[in-house]
Amino acid sequence: MSDDLQLPTEDQRAPQTAPPRIGVVGAGQLARMMLGPAIELDLPLTVLASDPAESAAVVAGSVRTGRHDEESAVRALATEVDVLTFDHEHVPTAFLERLVTDGDVQVRPGPGALVHAQDKLVMRRHLSELGHPCPRWWHVKDIADLEQALRENSGPVVVKTPRGGYDGHGVRIIERAEDAADWLEQHGELLAEQKVAFTRELSAQVARRPGGQTTTYPVVQSVQRDGVCYEVVAPAPDLDEAAQQRIQGLAAAIAADLGVTGMLAVELFETADGTVLVNELAMRPHNTGHWSMDGAVTGQFEQHLRAVADLPLGAPDLLAPSVVMVNLLGGDASELAPGARAAMEADPGIKVHLYGKSVRPGRKLGHVTVVGEDPVQLLARAHRAEKLIVDGPESPDAAGSPMGADTSGGRPSPDRPDAPEETP
Amino acid sequence: MSDDLQLPTEDQRAPQTAPPRIGVVGAGQLARMMLGPAIELDLPLTVLASDPAESAAVVAGSVRTGRHDEESAVRALATEVDVLTFDHEHVPTAFLERLVTDGDVQVRPGPGALVHAQDKLVMRRHLSELGHPCPRWWHVKDIADLEQALRENSGPVVVKTPRGGYDGHGVRIIERAEDAADWLEQHGELLAEQKVAFTRELSAQVARRPGGQTTTYPVVQSVQRDGVCYEVVAPAPDLDEAAQQRIQGLAAAIAADLGVTGMLAVELFETADGTVLVNELAMRPHNTGHWSMDGAVTGQFEQHLRAVADLPLGAPDLLAPSVVMVNLLGGDASELAPGARAAMEADPGIKVHLYGKSVRPGRKLGHVTVVGEDPVQLLARAHRAEKLIVDGPESPDAAGSPMGADTSGGRPSPDRPDAPEETP
Repeated sequence: MSDDLQLPTEDQRAPQTAPPRIGVVGAGQLARMMLGPAIELDLPLTVLASDPAESAAVVAGSVRTGRHDEESAVRALATEVDVLTFDHEHVPTAFLERLVTDGDVQVRPGPGALVHAQDKLVMRRHLSELGHPCPRWWHVKDIADLEQALRENSGPVVVKTPRGGYDGHGVRIIERAEDAADWLEQHGELLAEQKVAFTRELSAQVARRPGGQTTTYPVVQSVQRDGVCYEVVAPAPDLDEAAQQRIQGLAAAIAADLGVTGMLAVELFETADGTVLVNELAMRPHNTGHWSMDGAVTGQFEQHLRAVADLPLGAPDLLAPSVVMVNLLGGDASELAPGARAAMEADPGIKVHLYGKSVRPGRKLGHVTVVGEDPVQLLARAHRAEKLIVDGPESPDAAGSPMGADTSGGRPSPDRPDAPEETP
Repeated sequence: MSDDLQLPTEDQRAPQTAPPRIGVVGAGQLARMMLGPAIELDLPLTVLASDPAESAAVVAGSVRTGRHDEESAVRALATEVDVLTFDHEHVPTAFLERLVTDGDVQVRPGPGALVHAQDKLVMRRHLSELGHPCPRWWHVKDIADLEQALRENSGPVVVKTPRGGYDGHGVRIIERAEDAADWLEQHGELLAEQKVAFTRELSAQVARRPGGQTTTYPVVQSVQRDGVCYEVVAPAPDLDEAAQQRIQGLAAAIAADLGVTGMLAVELFETADGTVLVNELAMRPHNTGHWSMDGAVTGQFEQHLRAVADLPLGAPDLLAPSVVMVNLLGGDASELAPGARAAMEADPGIKVHLYGKSVRPGRKLGHVTVVGEDPVQLLARAHRAEKLIVDGPESPDAAGSPMGADTSGGRPSPDRPDAPEETP
């Protein structure tokens, strides 16, 4: 290509008059929760669903059926929209690179950014090169590498498959190299990481437009259960203003360094001395940002749409001193409607979000949020609603329990030694 | 029917496990704004649209095509859902009465309640019987009745067609009986009302479940422009707590007296001595409640769905000391997207809602809301956004105007002698 024939960069394109048509690859609950804001902003949105029964597909006005890992299906969606974005990270990078080369659709985030949320080895290598704080890590290509990591770490290491993990899948804590031999054979290479002795987990969310405009949300505290996001408090309690700004700055720097478009979630470990280390990245609305739907001026789903549509970003300000979110993970109840009714009866201030998914133990089926003053009380209210909904109004824990008596309340302590990634 | 064969009342029915399927007759912006909350609460919702291009029909996941004034179309929707509710008041009462008699679907609000929002003569007669405060009014059956009304009123009277009016249509202010002769011939009977010398207009919204549970929203102040709702401030400024409670009590009493299910809006005139008089009723989410989407714990669209689905009602509390809403009424711009972009750029705190409708002068195309502290400043911000969106970013009024300089600001003064009904 001659120097005179360069493609225009995004910033050089003239602003479009009509709102861009957005295609979302994947039809899980994240795509579903984009629908309301897309309707309000009048942004045409089509979801690509593997199955018409998927969470977003059953309610969306525009659905195309096809798999995210079939290039023809992704391409078919791309021909119908102006911007392609994602419900999850599992679209093969090569498909997206070819779409970018063809130039008929905007891919946001682009594959060069997205790969850092898809491939943990790429993420660790690049963040380390950039000087962003990471746990100590090893690129493991054979058993000898793994033995060396265990030796250098003087204790158990966390082993992760570079691609395809989610919600605790693809993560093991091992003390002997043989315990990951099967994965090495299967994946060819692995990421090993120091097991961080963290005091709590934080998450920093940031939205970034193609031209670089960036907005950071308040840093939140998150608690995982069995590798799945369970509880979030916004803003993170006992985080001083300087630490908050430092972490927001880190998230914004990562978004800029990696060229992210859309929402970026940076999950972090906080250690006893206040140091933070990057755990995982997600380039889409993230479970640790669900609180913002009810608790911020601009919710993360609206913000993601604004960012990928290259619209000016909205204010991320809290609508109350504290906002909490608790996930509804499949429990004893086979249907959520009776418990949801009971939860609404017990607490008119609770916001209930249901994803329309069939119940399986531990599955993410919805979430509740509460806005107010005191995070301890808000958590108690959210957990009471959670128990009513996932275990049913007849369950012994839920029935007639006074507010908060059935929850731990207070600032939650992580009860797991490691917190692997979580995705929808 | 024998005494032993009574149909169960709604309260005697066993609570359903599955969430009820909801059918909305009409597919305007009110149906559209129900979609987001229906998705989040996982309430299946189908809209009945006359035309697939209507505001809600272009984005809903489930659409049936048919007219609200064709009984077969309304019946076809009724066979697919458990609860029927409404985007507007224009479904013939007789259709609904027959559906209730057949008993296969819940009609909420029921026809016996809804008729008070459909027929202004029925409304005035019943509210007067119940002792609720109304302007002085006359049932006009011929020219002599109208002459008598003019005589008794010693000045101009407001003449309204009993059915079918909206947004200033079906309302005239007359000084001579001949000026309504055509309407008398056309409609057979008319409502004549005293022209109230009001100081401002208020609106009180209340939600009511089938069993009687009732929740009242803060009383708001509204301003009409050319008979169309234009601007709302929540809560109404300078309304003391006693007056607020008195008006909320009035709205709740009307909801109970008329047996309303769903949202009820009571539009009121406030006079110089603090008296309030009922102007109009609407039994659905109402323009004067749009602020609640962004400014209350439970927005009116979610609340309406909860009420008609017989779910416990949500908290109506404000999320900020003040919330304002300004309608986007068709102006100079032929498309709203450029101005919406400019408005978002100018003010990240603005919430923009677009209804996906083609632009016509004065048509309701969307609304903006802003939450914060000071209603004067919030109104200035909302009007700046409004002008950018409806007149376009290039318009002389909008371009580069400093915040609030292009608006009247402050507590708005109604600039019209009367404020007829407004519907979507």
